[in-house]
Amino acid sequence: MTDEVTMVRIYCTEGEHKLKKMLNYLHNEEHVAGVTAFRGVAGFGRSGKMHTASLLDLSLDMPVVIEFFDRPEKMAAVIEHLKTLLEPGHLVYWPARTNLSD
Amino acid sequence: MTDEVTMVRIYCTEGEHKLKKMLNYLHNEEHVAGVTAFRGVAGFGRSGKMHTASLLDLSLDMPVVIEFFDRPEKMAAVIEHLKTLLEPGHLVYWPARTNLSD
Amino acid sequence: MTDEVTMVRIYCTEGEHKLKKMLNYLHNEEHVAGVTAFRGVAGFGRSGKMHTASLLDLSLDMPVVIEFFDRPEKMAAVIEHLKTLLEPGHLVYWPARTNLSD
Repeated sequence: MTDEVTMVRIYCTEGEHKLKKMLNYLHNEEHVAGVTAFRGVAGFGRSGKMHTASLLDLSLDMPVVIEFFDRPEKMAAVIEHLKTLLEPGHLVYWPARTNLSD
Repeated sequence: MTDEVTMVRIYCTEGEHKLKKMLNYLHNEEHVAGVTAFRGVAGFGRSGKMHTASLLDLSLDMPVVIEFFDRPEKMAAVIEHLKTLLEPGHLVYWPARTNLSD
Repeated sequence: MTDEVTMVRIYCTEGEHKLKKMLNYLHNEEHVAGVTAFRGVAGFGRSGKMHTASLLDLSLDMPVVIEFFDRPEKMAAVIEHLKTLLEPGHLVYWPARTNLSD
């Protein structure tokens, strides 16, 4: 058994309602082993528009990153599907290793 | 001198009290050069139970990720020890590079 | 066209005022495609001094990580410049892949 995984990060903003949709997709349809979402405190995207938490702490425009990892062959299928849902440059992935699961 | 490092991320929840234990272990026993912990706003693990910040902002069940990196040979020993402490799939690591330290 | 990118993470603290400076540099001078900053809830650096959110939630000493990725040749130039600005061990980068942008 191998401990190789593919690590994936997806970039969206809270206003897009993509966070809940993505979590549900990864949880209910793909049964990914584990997912964590992080809220950024500042950022900008391809539009060049800066987002920061300084004006309004609960701004719906704040960046959110969704992170998960699982076996490479499983992630390859998930990544192919995500490419049809996400704008270019909103997905990044790389090979990594984990502690073995049974 | 090489600028190669191993990057490590550990996944736990605040309720496990693992955050403080892990920080102390990495700080006091392993003397890792730097560690940062991040609190997630949503997530789910192998149990499939979803955790979100929507119900209670200070929920003890929120995901926490602990991130650190150091020289590969030092990290190899730390990873071996962490494997005895963490559940399968709660640790991920990959090779990276840093700006050189003296 | 290739989907290869270099992923970069920069470690600083809020008290250094580096967050805004870095975001402005990456946004205005380097025109990096996207940048996200995350605030840690705990951490320690080479000084060994522990930072946590437990005492004061708005502490200026809290760790902040700035994350971005772009084409490897563009990131190589940015990394060379960042090395002149950042202390050793405050920058980490690794190869990754993205969904293609036009």
